[in-house]
Amino acid sequence: MELQGQMLIGHQQVMGKSGGTHAINPATGEKMEPFYGFATPDDTDRACVLAYQAFDAYRQTTLADRAAFLEAIADQIMAIGPALIARAHLETGLPVARLEGERGRTVNQLRLFAQVVRDGHWLNATLDSVLPERTPPRPDLRMQKIPLGPVAVFGASNFPLAFSVAGGDTASALAAGCPVVVKAHNAHLGTSELVGRAIQKAVIACNMPEGTFSMVIGAGAEVGQQLVAHPVIQAVGFTGSRNGGLALVNTANARKVPIPVYAEMSAINPVYLLKNSLSQQAAQLAQQFIDSLTLGAGQFCTNPGLVLLEKGAAADQFIEAAKTAVAAKAAATMLTPGIYSAYASGCDKLQQQPQVSVLGKGLPGSAPNTACAMISSCDAETFMRNHALQDEVFGPSSLIILCDDMAQMLEVTSHLEGQLTATIHADAADYDEARVLLHKLETKAGRVLFNGFPTGVEVCHAMVHGGPFPSTSDSRSTSVGATAIDRFLRPVCYQAVPAALLPQGLQDHNPWQLMRTVDGKLKL
Amino acid sequence: MELQGQMLIGHQQVMGKSGGTHAINPATGEKMEPFYGFATPDDTDRACVLAYQAFDAYRQTTLADRAAFLEAIADQIMAIGPALIARAHLETGLPVARLEGERGRTVNQLRLFAQVVRDGHWLNATLDSVLPERTPPRPDLRMQKIPLGPVAVFGASNFPLAFSVAGGDTASALAAGCPVVVKAHNAHLGTSELVGRAIQKAVIACNMPEGTFSMVIGAGAEVGQQLVAHPVIQAVGFTGSRNGGLALVNTANARKVPIPVYAEMSAINPVYLLKNSLSQQAAQLAQQFIDSLTLGAGQFCTNPGLVLLEKGAAADQFIEAAKTAVAAKAAATMLTPGIYSAYASGCDKLQQQPQVSVLGKGLPGSAPNTACAMISSCDAETFMRNHALQDEVFGPSSLIILCDDMAQMLEVTSHLEGQLTATIHADAADYDEARVLLHKLETKAGRVLFNGFPTGVEVCHAMVHGGPFPSTSDSRSTSVGATAIDRFLRPVCYQAVPAALLPQGLQDHNPWQLMRTVDGKLKL
Repeated sequence: MELQGQMLIGHQQVMGKSGGTHAINPATGEKMEPFYGFATPDDTDRACVLAYQAFDAYRQTTLADRAAFLEAIADQIMAIGPALIARAHLETGLPVARLEGERGRTVNQLRLFAQVVRDGHWLNATLDSVLPERTPPRPDLRMQKIPLGPVAVFGASNFPLAFSVAGGDTASALAAGCPVVVKAHNAHLGTSELVGRAIQKAVIACNMPEGTFSMVIGAGAEVGQQLVAHPVIQAVGFTGSRNGGLALVNTANARKVPIPVYAEMSAINPVYLLKNSLSQQAAQLAQQFIDSLTLGAGQFCTNPGLVLLEKGAAADQFIEAAKTAVAAKAAATMLTPGIYSAYASGCDKLQQQPQVSVLGKGLPGSAPNTACAMISSCDAETFMRNHALQDEVFGPSSLIILCDDMAQMLEVTSHLEGQLTATIHADAADYDEARVLLHKLETKAGRVLFNGFPTGVEVCHAMVHGGPFPSTSDSRSTSVGATAIDRFLRPVCYQAVPAALLPQGLQDHNPWQLMRTVDGKLKL
Repeated sequence: MELQGQMLIGHQQVMGKSGGTHAINPATGEKMEPFYGFATPDDTDRACVLAYQAFDAYRQTTLADRAAFLEAIADQIMAIGPALIARAHLETGLPVARLEGERGRTVNQLRLFAQVVRDGHWLNATLDSVLPERTPPRPDLRMQKIPLGPVAVFGASNFPLAFSVAGGDTASALAAGCPVVVKAHNAHLGTSELVGRAIQKAVIACNMPEGTFSMVIGAGAEVGQQLVAHPVIQAVGFTGSRNGGLALVNTANARKVPIPVYAEMSAINPVYLLKNSLSQQAAQLAQQFIDSLTLGAGQFCTNPGLVLLEKGAAADQFIEAAKTAVAAKAAATMLTPGIYSAYASGCDKLQQQPQVSVLGKGLPGSAPNTACAMISSCDAETFMRNHALQDEVFGPSSLIILCDDMAQMLEVTSHLEGQLTATIHADAADYDEARVLLHKLETKAGRVLFNGFPTGVEVCHAMVHGGPFPSTSDSRSTSVGATAIDRFLRPVCYQAVPAALLPQGLQDHNPWQLMRTVDGKLKL
């Protein structure tokens, strides 16, 4: 399919008339065809109004029909074939194998949500029996969750498939029964157009209401701000920078009717190397650390940007091995020229901080926009004194904190901002200390992992990709995994509603075979 | 027990030194003894710091111990005996029988949350199995919810027991594992002291950490603002006015680390009388409506402040009967002089609105602060043109909207702000219209009820006392019922955590016998 440079508004393809742009191939710095037109305010408004008009019919689709629609989106994405991977590769500089894996994750995510929709446990169907003999009598009370309304989704630059047009936010919002208006990321406009068309085809093939999905394109913040301020939009999913996320939060809070914004923003993902584990395998851990740090040019929300360990021989050995490992790492193309220049200036700023030493760097790159990995270190006192050292440098940069002892490692932990992940390397001899650390870290992060590295976010039921502010704007939620659907729901109680008028999930004979809470007990 | 005029900070009784006040008997306008001192900034800070220090130990109490603590609070409240009811009656003007009922609700609520804690379903324990053969292998992933941290609670004037010091917010936050700092409501300081001491006794008797509960006293907004801005406070529960709630929301959003505020603010709770139901029982509905309107001097969040019906003979009959019924209603003492004067000026303002007719009033009162009920009416066009007619008049005032037909009733519904409740009176001949209305109202309200009146909020599993903005600041939550606990929790994922270090609820052998989601399926 030829790319057209068009937005997708309901059933239509629309060429934006308010200026526009080209995608850039970061590996060459060259503009890519076609030209993409930006939405006029009317275009964005039309997408929102269509979403509003679709909401009632879409939310009342059966669980089976909605699940089939999610699966149809997955099928349509696969049906694009290699053209999708080829375009995404050119637009993002990400390797083909990685993008194929990411496509698999994207369609599996849609299929997981199809299963979640069918199971219906997200409805939280709850029934309390009438108690006619009580004084006063208790009426019949039933509760289920319903979708919030149209959702605005802002894709991430670093996951052009799994966190973009048909990514986790879109999949979970559609699963919840919310129409979606996506603002495409300008870093991968062709990829977005291809995926957007796949969703549009699925909408039409499955007879979903026209406004169930739209995708608009725009420069910088304008179209995004208009979306979040639009009265019909009822929630926002965002993955990106802290500044970008907070700007949307402020807009949402200033609305006449404020709405929730689920912004996944920034984290430095501390990795703790406890002493017995470290002394057993310092060199091996160093290699794994550098591999994780440089994966995807370090462009993961969960990139290990901070390493904590106790001073000593094992730490020295770890550092020496990390220097060697990083020195062998080739420079890698970053997603966009803007991300590359932010990375370069982040590294410069870090090198200029007092008492921070650069330990080593990767091989320099000659092509445009290639990031060279960097590891630095400082002592714990320096880190605690200088809050700038907690700023995320998006890319393959990590800071190693040398602590005097475990007590100081815990003190540093108390100074940390909220994180998406925290990692502990520990063997059995470290468990007493690991236990204390785990109790502290669970209050600081959304995911705590042992003896691994945080890059790699499984899409499953138990995943939490979230965490305390500023890693996200709402620590009560996850943007990955089955429970991401909960972000777009709210409960409604039905009191003494006649049987003929009850929502299906709450009817006595349980036609959808849901697990329900009946008088406080879960049952089929 | 003699009242001391003291705050409760951890294990101590503390006399505030920053000015102070007396409670007022609204029935006489007289000051009541003792004098209550207001918190200095240091007092409030101390309560917060103690809560922070208590958090780790309190959140790690066993489910059994925490449940027993909630039950001990209930027992200590009952042990106060008639002195509690007597003081609350003098401070609020609410009848003794109502206060006895409210006490029953308060202790039952604590006991319900004890049961909720024991069941442990709120932990959302979720396990995904390791898949070692997959490429890449899937690690062991487990998830549970943990408490957010210390919670600030602001009690309501209109429920001096069930929504105050040991009310729903406190009970659900303590159940979640969050220490609580209450700001006592100045309208019932003696009641607050008695209940606060009961909780303090339970903290000591159950060996809970000292800062698990504190109660501070302060003038107007100052102490409240300090609490919400305090860095250790992680969430806020509030029931009160829209202005008060929004002020706390703004403070919470402006923090360096923003926190959630669950503010239950205002609603006018529309009641729809569909034509067949109305024509069958116009006079009876009118009497029930006036009884509900004047219950507790109309001082319910769920008071029926708006009635919608179609013009015609049945509507005329309803209005005539309502006039008769309201004319027989005695004036009733309101909770505070401030609430009375706000009610009086709200009624004045309503009478001055163009095209609004006063239909009838209750008997005038001679004692101080007694509210005289008022019913008024206007046509649907007038209502939709004038947004001021949606302002809540807290007290026994209701506005009857005369609609031309069902289509216009739906049009009015589209104009309504978010509501706590919406009520439909319908008999079988009305079901086609009721179905359309129900679908619309579930997007406008947290609870939709049939053939009853909205005053009366059951404490059970299926209750939702919440709703879209501005009825609350967060439509995704309820402040009454078992799921109120969810407001104070966030999920944490444990990846590849060694068995020896896993939280108990996530251990393989399921020592707490929780219902858990294992590989996507709920099981014991």
